[in-house]
Amino acid sequence: MSQNTTPAELARVRRKPSRARYDTAAVYAVLDAAPLCHVATVRRDRPIVLPMAFGRIGDVLVLHGSPVAGLFRDAAADSPVCVTATLLDALVLARSARNHSMNYRSVVVHGEAVRVTEPDRVMAGLRAVVEHVTPGRWAQIREPTGTELRETALWQVAIGAAAAGPGQSSTASVKIRSGSTLDPDADRAWPVWAGQIPARLTFGPPVEADDLPPGTPFPGYLRAL
Amino acid sequence: MSQNTTPAELARVRRKPSRARYDTAAVYAVLDAAPLCHVATVRRDRPIVLPMAFGRIGDVLVLHGSPVAGLFRDAAADSPVCVTATLLDALVLARSARNHSMNYRSVVVHGEAVRVTEPDRVMAGLRAVVEHVTPGRWAQIREPTGTELRETALWQVAIGAAAAGPGQSSTASVKIRSGSTLDPDADRAWPVWAGQIPARLTFGPPVEADDLPPGTPFPGYLRAL
Repeated sequence: MSQNTTPAELARVRRKPSRARYDTAAVYAVLDAAPLCHVATVRRDRPIVLPMAFGRIGDVLVLHGSPVAGLFRDAAADSPVCVTATLLDALVLARSARNHSMNYRSVVVHGEAVRVTEPDRVMAGLRAVVEHVTPGRWAQIREPTGTELRETALWQVAIGAAAAGPGQSSTASVKIRSGSTLDPDADRAWPVWAGQIPARLTFGPPVEADDLPPGTPFPGYLRAL
Repeated sequence: MSQNTTPAELARVRRKPSRARYDTAAVYAVLDAAPLCHVATVRRDRPIVLPMAFGRIGDVLVLHGSPVAGLFRDAAADSPVCVTATLLDALVLARSARNHSMNYRSVVVHGEAVRVTEPDRVMAGLRAVVEHVTPGRWAQIREPTGTELRETALWQVAIGAAAAGPGQSSTASVKIRSGSTLDPDADRAWPVWAGQIPARLTFGPPVEADDLPPGTPFPGYLRAL
């Protein structure tokens, strides 16, 4: 990997640093609430970013992709990745275009992606990915076979310097914008509604698989969604 | 920019190409439905990806950032960017971990970001960004001042080869996963609920700004959210 720019330099939030936090609990809270992440890598000097399923085991992110996916052909060679997970919390509607904003929580992890191959660790990683969006489900589904574990493409990325292995580096930061509009006094009499429109991801009524045997109960852990 | 890999090569969807579409209408439909995008660039050989507000004017994406944001210090030098917008449509819950999936729509645009500086074009770009999430609002808000236009940091990225300027390149593709679980026959009797949990971004009751004059009407175009 290049040593020209360290992850610590990249991760230092330049814009509106007052919105930035680096503490572990805040990073984990945003990661755990995000259903998917966006993973960027560099392919022959060009950036590429794709959405990806993920999970977390302590201070390690587990990314789930395909071995033939373009993204991970680089990461398999231990090249740097940037993983970003974003939650939109509100549209912030001000009196002027300039002061329109969004409330959001976003985590950015700079590190290296390392392929997970040891069967027990692949099993633990798959479990983390499944439990990330549907906690409680792992105990109910069919356990992976040995062949499935060998064919499963998982990568891990350390979250923060303390989690990075020998020769690796990692930084993680979270940026949060919350609260209402910030219009200057001169704009407040402008005759337009101003405020926030809260936003969140919601889950609708479940749709049974066509081949589901009649009477199969809908599990409680999914009601929590 | 590097000529080692062309955007066309990067954009060719390698994994599950049956899910990929390249037609313009499908690309625009996903872009227009996504409230934000993730923009990746390369900074000294490392990737960086951040969430960003955006809009669309015909075959051009308009990205709204800050001139001091780390991301755009590269793009101002006409370096390559990758813009990805993703909509999560459902969790797909199968009988095995291997067959768990998500339904989603995702657009990936590979191109170059070009700074927009001409005041009329900055005005049009700002309008596109505001109207992207709240169509109808531009006509009601205070028009930007000349100073605001000069201070506004907008970049544009062509969507597809036909929109790329001289010396530029761009490709855009959309990938869609829809439908139900794909369990093999041998798994169908496994005693677990299987199917889809639809997901979507929803907007909650509006929260008025503290300084909103009493009686300011809530506009109809926001009810449509």
